[in-house]
Amino acid sequence: MSTRRNNREHAQRYLDGLQGHPFPNSEKLYLTGSRDDLRVGMREVTLTPSVIGGDRANPITRDNDPIPVYDTAGPYSDPASDIDVRAGLAPLRRQWILERGDTTELASVSSDYTQQRLADAGFDHLRFEQLPNPRKAKAGANVSQLHYARNGVITPEMEYVAIRENLGRERLRNEILTQAQPGQSFGANLPERITAEFVRSEVAAGRAIIPVNINHPEAEPMIIGRNFLVKVNANIGNSSVSSSIEEEVEKLVWSCRWGADTVMDLSTGRHIHETREWIIRNSPVPIGTVPIYQALEKVNGIAEDLTWPIFRDTLIEQAEQGVDYFTIHAGVLLRYVPMTAERVTGIVSRGGSIMAKWCLSHHKENFLYEHFEAICELCAQYDVALSLGDGMRPGSVADANDRAQFAELETLGELTKIAWKHDVQTIIEGPGHVPMQLIKVNMDKQLQECFEAPFYTLGPQITDIAPGYDHFTSGIGAAMIGWYGCAMLCYVTPKEHLGLPDKEDVKQGLIAYKIAAHAADIAKGHPGAQIRDNALSLARFEFRWEDQFNLSLDPETARAYHDASLPQESAKVAHFCSMCGPKFCSMKITQEVRDYAAKNGSGDPLAQVIELQDDTEIVKGMAQQSEAFRQQGGQLYHALSDEDELESQS
Amino acid sequence: MSTRRNNREHAQRYLDGLQGHPFPNSEKLYLTGSRDDLRVGMREVTLTPSVIGGDRANPITRDNDPIPVYDTAGPYSDPASDIDVRAGLAPLRRQWILERGDTTELASVSSDYTQQRLADAGFDHLRFEQLPNPRKAKAGANVSQLHYARNGVITPEMEYVAIRENLGRERLRNEILTQAQPGQSFGANLPERITAEFVRSEVAAGRAIIPVNINHPEAEPMIIGRNFLVKVNANIGNSSVSSSIEEEVEKLVWSCRWGADTVMDLSTGRHIHETREWIIRNSPVPIGTVPIYQALEKVNGIAEDLTWPIFRDTLIEQAEQGVDYFTIHAGVLLRYVPMTAERVTGIVSRGGSIMAKWCLSHHKENFLYEHFEAICELCAQYDVALSLGDGMRPGSVADANDRAQFAELETLGELTKIAWKHDVQTIIEGPGHVPMQLIKVNMDKQLQECFEAPFYTLGPQITDIAPGYDHFTSGIGAAMIGWYGCAMLCYVTPKEHLGLPDKEDVKQGLIAYKIAAHAADIAKGHPGAQIRDNALSLARFEFRWEDQFNLSLDPETARAYHDASLPQESAKVAHFCSMCGPKFCSMKITQEVRDYAAKNGSGDPLAQVIELQDDTEIVKGMAQQSEAFRQQGGQLYHALSDEDELESQS
Repeated sequence: MSTRRNNREHAQRYLDGLQGHPFPNSEKLYLTGSRDDLRVGMREVTLTPSVIGGDRANPITRDNDPIPVYDTAGPYSDPASDIDVRAGLAPLRRQWILERGDTTELASVSSDYTQQRLADAGFDHLRFEQLPNPRKAKAGANVSQLHYARNGVITPEMEYVAIRENLGRERLRNEILTQAQPGQSFGANLPERITAEFVRSEVAAGRAIIPVNINHPEAEPMIIGRNFLVKVNANIGNSSVSSSIEEEVEKLVWSCRWGADTVMDLSTGRHIHETREWIIRNSPVPIGTVPIYQALEKVNGIAEDLTWPIFRDTLIEQAEQGVDYFTIHAGVLLRYVPMTAERVTGIVSRGGSIMAKWCLSHHKENFLYEHFEAICELCAQYDVALSLGDGMRPGSVADANDRAQFAELETLGELTKIAWKHDVQTIIEGPGHVPMQLIKVNMDKQLQECFEAPFYTLGPQITDIAPGYDHFTSGIGAAMIGWYGCAMLCYVTPKEHLGLPDKEDVKQGLIAYKIAAHAADIAKGHPGAQIRDNALSLARFEFRWEDQFNLSLDPETARAYHDASLPQESAKVAHFCSMCGPKFCSMKITQEVRDYAAKNGSGDPLAQVIELQDDTEIVKGMAQQSEAFRQQGGQLYHALSDEDELESQS
Repeated sequence: MSTRRNNREHAQRYLDGLQGHPFPNSEKLYLTGSRDDLRVGMREVTLTPSVIGGDRANPITRDNDPIPVYDTAGPYSDPASDIDVRAGLAPLRRQWILERGDTTELASVSSDYTQQRLADAGFDHLRFEQLPNPRKAKAGANVSQLHYARNGVITPEMEYVAIRENLGRERLRNEILTQAQPGQSFGANLPERITAEFVRSEVAAGRAIIPVNINHPEAEPMIIGRNFLVKVNANIGNSSVSSSIEEEVEKLVWSCRWGADTVMDLSTGRHIHETREWIIRNSPVPIGTVPIYQALEKVNGIAEDLTWPIFRDTLIEQAEQGVDYFTIHAGVLLRYVPMTAERVTGIVSRGGSIMAKWCLSHHKENFLYEHFEAICELCAQYDVALSLGDGMRPGSVADANDRAQFAELETLGELTKIAWKHDVQTIIEGPGHVPMQLIKVNMDKQLQECFEAPFYTLGPQITDIAPGYDHFTSGIGAAMIGWYGCAMLCYVTPKEHLGLPDKEDVKQGLIAYKIAAHAADIAKGHPGAQIRDNALSLARFEFRWEDQFNLSLDPETARAYHDASLPQESAKVAHFCSMCGPKFCSMKITQEVRDYAAKNGSGDPLAQVIELQDDTEIVKGMAQQSEAFRQQGGQLYHALSDEDELESQS
């Protein structure tokens, strides 16, 4: 018990002291769109100048462009923000929602359960106090971004997304930064510049979603689709055996800081309702849930006691709190359940197993499938997106791509068409555990069966032999499927299969998945994806250590690792590093190659050498070149005096 | 200085206390070949029995097959071994070498440098005391495994390798274990069972090497080739600014424990010669070096002062110590150097930059290229394999696959033919930094240009934005290129680009790369690769927590992560875990599905349900099924009493 209390108290202190703070040497930047209240937050990493000549006393320098970085932290990375987790974040989208005039503010919540819960003073100590009144579509109205998009309306959310995806790249001046390797897009359509109209058209086609419940106006709009940057989801949530509300809110803030594009609250404990309220009110990113988890709590964990009315009330409860997307396991059909009997690991999806049990117990078809149209009607009234759950996903590489998995995927395609009929934004969940050679067929089949609705996969994990490292075993699969076309990658933490993730696990999971998503962007040929790589590589080559740290996904760790070998401040401006030491350094030698090439001819340096070799007086020429190089080489090992200094210190 | 002294003392204590110890619940196992002294070490993970019926008081159990695991730790994982790092390991191959009768024991070392070094009492305190006399081929003899293979000789080393690669898989009884997903081999030839003759034929064809210097009889034979298990190399080695001999020997032992198939000693500091002796004498795995590093030390770090005689003496020095393979940057040609001038990160290979500088300085062709035949002649006398270094490898994704890189690769193909002419075993080094979409062309081009000589790559790293996590950014690329056909993956540690790895970094790098190599084996369809995955997945499904931990690549970490959430001993036999809690558990529910399917029909469970649904009395049938399931469901939440117990404890 003491550990749990300590964790809670630690989280409480963290939240009390919370204020917006950027990453090292980063500035929060807002690009304003067509209206003053459309301000798209991002961060810029400020770089030190490059030394391009002169000497140590009087260096000649060239300024380096600040590098824009996609920022999921919202107000939490802005020092100008007032953060008060008891008040929640500012509702940046409220005015946009109000202006559309298609919603009404409800006098009270519609869910029976919420009403009972609010009336129970026993939960007062847990409750988020400043509860907003929920909104709902006016009778007959559909308030989804898909509905607007299909009607040709470009919403502020769409414009926001377009600006956000472009990152203001046109402001970069150094051409080396925007050079990129050719991508292999596997059919993705990646325009050089994202326009609001492109966003609208992609949403209208169902190829992308903007998950923005009208009751979560605090969220910054973002987009999930194959033709945009690959996104990452972080799962948080307490269970009946671990963690508190404070810890979950701390994990939310932490997740956003480390790059979660959306967060799923998978709580299964006693205070799901109250935990969720705290999370949503403080979240700058869309929040997803699996409503069946809470519905199961309401029937005391007895799956066969689940009913459609209880589930429906749960959807309303959560929609009016502001959940942005629901995972619904409507594709777990009765006839698919026995297909899992021969598997090595059976059904591993919690939602899938609950529905499988319900189906077998009643020997009836899945009630989520039977009531799917009603679910869609409800989602359209709040703009809750649907994430069609893969209850039959494989739980081991042995079970990958079997008929249970693919049968369900086909049903998810059928459900996608129904959701789209109701203008409900839809994404499709995918596996799970899949060895490398079987990943691509998952992507291809999903695109085909689900009509290019965005794919959202958990990993996939490519081997089962490394519990404790499954952020990595799954991060490999995630990078690959992101390249092949997956729109969002659900992270896995090092604790997967073993325990619930703590804060450090959340960070490790997110960094693994930011790497996977970014690598996928580069591989697809996403315009601008390589800018940060180029900037960091240039900094590395020029021994701008501070810039190399600050451009990293995790500046603190990069700096700490460097300092573990060379803790002296002087080492951060040294023109060598601990790997090779000062005696020789490949980067330094390359600079000499470059200087040599520059001084010995203005043309193609290759041609110059070939020319020399072709010379009839080749021996003489070589001797001359050699002498010239030696004369330039007086300062070859620039840092020799630094070396002695360092060695005497260490 | 105090940190350095502490590290040294820590390493000293570690080495003093060293004794063979297996992984948890593992036993060291030796399979004997055609002669009594051909005993192939591996480890077996012993599993607990499965509960298949009965009740808690009288469970009915079924034994589980122990799972064989490839073991690189040699005597260090055998409790029966006497380990004394001052004496070195037992020379298990000495008799085989002697029996061939094609070598002679030298009265003294051949290298001038070694002779001087041995005569200098100033190094006595650093020296490995029990120096063996070196051996060398008799005049005119070629003692390479490639030479024997081409002459139709199956050596004990070849037989050893065959037994080692098969892992005694035929002893497994449970058929589920050997089920495997279909692989995609990209042309690899992966026989169900490796024979010694197959090993010979692959070595003879140059498609595989067995790096076994006659002066390193302590090493256990292993094979590097596309048609065998993918291997992993760990780099260790001190530099002028860090680490001691004790620390490097500790890292060697540690590397073998965590799965290094070979170890490269990349030391660049003052005591390279003595450090290497300690490493080789204590290494059960082949040792590689980059001799130019030491040659450079001998000319005080001035690259242009390097000469062929100095380099040649260094090769002899190292060959007589027992280095199993040399990285030689003979493909860095003068005309290629200027091709790097326009790169973002120029030349990043240390060896490559040294040779580039030498070439430019003298404006002569690379002396390693000019004297390549002499290098081969020397290697053939000791059976040192060649690893043709990629001095022009890219140092950033921006520079991948450029003309400098591929021009050098073509030259490495030319050098491969020369090495093969001398029956010298040869592998080819590869990049580096390559984005995902450009990896496959590297593999394909290498196979073509170098006539299927084994490829040995560093990563490749697929993005540059995550210093501090480059074991992961490169592990992704390593998994992919391993799948495509790369034979050995050179690990990268979290400290890459930032500092020198410590022991924990070595472990993290190795685990990342063991995952990559293993995932590649599965993806290629290597027979037996999926056994450990299947065994672990079965253990997971059956809540055999101890087995799940013990089958993991890192049992201690898996156990620690589990215990962080559920520290009670009872939780390790609990039929639930902290992720879902005891209220519902997908694995438990799956078991119910399975039991249900088993009890309600002996045929195809799918057919049974479909049949029911097709029944004209379908409603009645469903009601019956439902009732039957409810009756079976009395014990649905098996662990409810455990739950209360756990909650009261926590």
